[in-house]
Amino acid sequence: MNQAALIAGPIGPIENPTTMLRDLVCSAKLSFLMEAHDGLSAAIVKQAGFKGLWASGFSISSALGYRDANEASWTEVVDVVERMADASGLPILVDGESGFGNFNNARLLAIKLLQHGAAGVCLEDKLFPKRNSFVGDRHPLVDIDEFCGRLRAVRDTTGNDLVLVARIEALIAGYGLGEALRRAEAYAEAGADAILIHSRKSHANEILAFAKQWQKLPIVIVPTKYYRTPVSAYRDAGISTVIWANHAMRAAVAGMRAVCGRIATEESVAGIEPEVATLEEVFDLMGYEELVSAEERYLPKHL
Amino acid sequence: MNQAALIAGPIGPIENPTTMLRDLVCSAKLSFLMEAHDGLSAAIVKQAGFKGLWASGFSISSALGYRDANEASWTEVVDVVERMADASGLPILVDGESGFGNFNNARLLAIKLLQHGAAGVCLEDKLFPKRNSFVGDRHPLVDIDEFCGRLRAVRDTTGNDLVLVARIEALIAGYGLGEALRRAEAYAEAGADAILIHSRKSHANEILAFAKQWQKLPIVIVPTKYYRTPVSAYRDAGISTVIWANHAMRAAVAGMRAVCGRIATEESVAGIEPEVATLEEVFDLMGYEELVSAEERYLPKHL
Amino acid sequence: MNQAALIAGPIGPIENPTTMLRDLVCSAKLSFLMEAHDGLSAAIVKQAGFKGLWASGFSISSALGYRDANEASWTEVVDVVERMADASGLPILVDGESGFGNFNNARLLAIKLLQHGAAGVCLEDKLFPKRNSFVGDRHPLVDIDEFCGRLRAVRDTTGNDLVLVARIEALIAGYGLGEALRRAEAYAEAGADAILIHSRKSHANEILAFAKQWQKLPIVIVPTKYYRTPVSAYRDAGISTVIWANHAMRAAVAGMRAVCGRIATEESVAGIEPEVATLEEVFDLMGYEELVSAEERYLPKHL
Amino acid sequence: MNQAALIAGPIGPIENPTTMLRDLVCSAKLSFLMEAHDGLSAAIVKQAGFKGLWASGFSISSALGYRDANEASWTEVVDVVERMADASGLPILVDGESGFGNFNNARLLAIKLLQHGAAGVCLEDKLFPKRNSFVGDRHPLVDIDEFCGRLRAVRDTTGNDLVLVARIEALIAGYGLGEALRRAEAYAEAGADAILIHSRKSHANEILAFAKQWQKLPIVIVPTKYYRTPVSAYRDAGISTVIWANHAMRAAVAGMRAVCGRIATEESVAGIEPEVATLEEVFDLMGYEELVSAEERYLPKHL
Repeated sequence: MNQAALIAGPIGPIENPTTMLRDLVCSAKLSFLMEAHDGLSAAIVKQAGFKGLWASGFSISSALGYRDANEASWTEVVDVVERMADASGLPILVDGESGFGNFNNARLLAIKLLQHGAAGVCLEDKLFPKRNSFVGDRHPLVDIDEFCGRLRAVRDTTGNDLVLVARIEALIAGYGLGEALRRAEAYAEAGADAILIHSRKSHANEILAFAKQWQKLPIVIVPTKYYRTPVSAYRDAGISTVIWANHAMRAAVAGMRAVCGRIATEESVAGIEPEVATLEEVFDLMGYEELVSAEERYLPKHL
Repeated sequence: MNQAALIAGPIGPIENPTTMLRDLVCSAKLSFLMEAHDGLSAAIVKQAGFKGLWASGFSISSALGYRDANEASWTEVVDVVERMADASGLPILVDGESGFGNFNNARLLAIKLLQHGAAGVCLEDKLFPKRNSFVGDRHPLVDIDEFCGRLRAVRDTTGNDLVLVARIEALIAGYGLGEALRRAEAYAEAGADAILIHSRKSHANEILAFAKQWQKLPIVIVPTKYYRTPVSAYRDAGISTVIWANHAMRAAVAGMRAVCGRIATEESVAGIEPEVATLEEVFDLMGYEELVSAEERYLPKHL
Repeated sequence: MNQAALIAGPIGPIENPTTMLRDLVCSAKLSFLMEAHDGLSAAIVKQAGFKGLWASGFSISSALGYRDANEASWTEVVDVVERMADASGLPILVDGESGFGNFNNARLLAIKLLQHGAAGVCLEDKLFPKRNSFVGDRHPLVDIDEFCGRLRAVRDTTGNDLVLVARIEALIAGYGLGEALRRAEAYAEAGADAILIHSRKSHANEILAFAKQWQKLPIVIVPTKYYRTPVSAYRDAGISTVIWANHAMRAAVAGMRAVCGRIATEESVAGIEPEVATLEEVFDLMGYEELVSAEERYLPKHL
Repeated sequence: MNQAALIAGPIGPIENPTTMLRDLVCSAKLSFLMEAHDGLSAAIVKQAGFKGLWASGFSISSALGYRDANEASWTEVVDVVERMADASGLPILVDGESGFGNFNNARLLAIKLLQHGAAGVCLEDKLFPKRNSFVGDRHPLVDIDEFCGRLRAVRDTTGNDLVLVARIEALIAGYGLGEALRRAEAYAEAGADAILIHSRKSHANEILAFAKQWQKLPIVIVPTKYYRTPVSAYRDAGISTVIWANHAMRAAVAGMRAVCGRIATEESVAGIEPEVATLEEVFDLMGYEELVSAEERYLPKHL
């Protein structure tokens, strides 16, 4: 899928991306969203068979050369999401960070994401700009009422045209399960379609404890740190969606690092040729055959 | 290298990127430029020890989800180059395609590339927009005088502040060595700093034949198809620069494809965890430690 | 109208912009499109009561500081159109120049314009990049078949979701009425919704002659040079749409020039204060009152 | 001035824009900066004889169709500034708002503004995002230490390559002269080159009172509300720079409103033709004659 997909016919995908994402996130069946961070990675994730994308703030920042500290502007993020949507045709849940400001910035972000091809946005109850989250302990969370205002503003502005996920940082920030549940209640009330509960523990205990006590809305999780827990545990716990949050980007880093290192050392690409994608595979991924047939259809023979 | 590099101190790299690129491209010693296509890949190429980058039109298009047919606008390309420069601090030779129009578009591109962090631009003697180059045989080349006008316009506009490489498509387009040499002469006269001679043969014969007869300016080559020829042959032939033109992107594709495929099948990231870069490695690559120390320096303790 | 309009409620204007534009351009009644070139001018045109906008390439280029010679990239134009749509809520017919390349660039432009808020695109049968049109006489036109390929590609890609206007430069380029009619036939066949017939004469004779002989599709005209002809002549001739093509921009230039000149001379704004819009008028134009009420609705009282 | 200026010769303006702005802002002589908000307005301000530009957040937001509440992203602002610099060649002091976040966002903004053509940045001691400033009374200001961190970060990152102006909102926010002076001291200590003291009173009393007690750094003022005070009062008070902060935009609004209104009513442009700029005047403003001569120089005669 690719520009070819975008161009394939009269606009208007048969299925609405938001409906598709809602089916994934709100169904009883466990679903998976795979991270992508640009057009190319989105096309690869699609080819691998995933049904939905996670537009990761961390991965998009990295691809742009930024750090994950709200260095990328909100319009830069929207642009990347548009490219991902065009290249994959998949429904995309976008990491909307804390909304890039207050309720007004959040709703502006949401409406623009929708227009540019996103199917959902996830907002987190953090301050803007994001502090460095791997240093220190009890990070301040945003005021509940203020955050609920952001959620309500997004909901009022985009109606049901955008899936709205509220991400709770209470566990990571060290405020405990009670605070997490209290926030989940408030965010549900404010109009969230689902709750993303985040944890940085190396095991899923606190996530599963939350799932046990929270039934009101679908639960989305991000098992980056507690990756060893088998997926069956999430199925048993009734969790709705698992996000593989940054693994495409980290695979790209590993792949490029190995190949660049060898080329630098070997002063040759002969050795790595079998380990990289062929040109034809890239052409296939990006839909070049559509361009060939379109040239036949639209370019006069004499040109 | 990364945003941290950008921010590391009063602006003004000790060494000028254009001077650095000129040293690479115009020295007697064989140099290598490695392809990158976004901030992340640029940082990886830097880490691998390369001294200069090739901003490949094909790779940048692919990363954006476009096909390599002048779908990406010239300003989109400039934006990507800026991110690559910020993330790596390396001198960048930019694939300027045919200049995105006539002499006026070419000089506008050049001046903006220079402002946004590039060290050089490579212009090719093709028509705009680029036709699909893997179908058909004798593609039309741009009129020599018209192309020389583009080169002169870029030279007059950017002076010696940007390395100017003229790429000859005569061999690929099937016009033979004589035409290639004739064009090289004209492009040298028009102000090119170096000649990129391109071939799509699976051996380097026509490249080496060109090198034998052309001594006026440094020669740059792109051994994507004729990758089996050992680099020693280029050293012997007095070639100045080898561009590994799309291998970082193709490594990223291979890496992401393998990992995404396994995650889709295994419904788990536990298996692939050892094969992807760690979070810490990404933090290191993008200079997060600079942010930590900067927060200490610039954020009040009580916040 | 403004950002407030964008945000005013669940997305989905009651009326589709393309339908609105089609009603203007394809109705028997003479309609008017007024030029705008950014968000502010679009809001003003809306306030003045116009029902549709012309996104002029010349005016947008000027606002950006470019010359009208395809210096602005196609993505820069799309960005401006998006801002105009957001700020006005009006249907916009976009000056798509010659399509920024071949059929593939044209359809990519069209699909992106549609996504970013445009209601129609006008393509002209010129070469890319545009030459300086006020020097010289018989400018070359693009090959009819090639141009029809662009039109068909846009039509196939956007279906009826975008109004497609074909602009004929044959009269301006000095090829006469016969060639203009021949091209109109071909463009109608290729799927155009309307024909824009352009003239640089100071009287409307050749326009009216064209209108007399051409009944197949609605006719759009741009009376910039032949502005003295009364509109009744166009009504009588059955012309569909008049575009006032650059007068908002030229009014802004005149207004700013006069005021800047006086401030420079008088070293004071006291004298010009009555001649510029008040702050309150700008607030009103851009919908600040929506922000005030939204702050009440979404921001907690204690913040 | 215009694209032509940009292209006029080998890059490297004889005079550095930052030096030029420093001469204006830091000299004993009273200087004037005139607002502009896009390429066109910047070219007009240049033509009117002003020596420096003020890139107003309010005006740029309005031109883009945004409200002045940090709706425009920081990268959108940088893009506009680049167009203004290209179109005018004048030194530009940019309204950097509160820095679009914390010290890290502020220094990223500053370094990018510098690269994209700005000569100085003005940061104000407000929270992000900006609240609606014409409602309510005592708006919270940002913590002094936190704001000083932003200033120090910008200074450390850009050295003396960018003029740094600290804008004090203490008077407007109702905290009085003492607080304003206390902040001025701190901001001077943190590295500001000049102090912008803002007032919303209709007379200049509190500005003049501040000027009487503050001699450490040059003072910049914005007499939008207290416009009746004659400039001689500022000369007497030793004020360094007067910013005419939004009058070009407000002149454009008035000019476009009048003309659009008349065209709508009169269904003709014949009446307003004498009141708008001619096409030739726009061509002259944007440097079309450079393009004509460049086409002669760089395009082959036979094309």
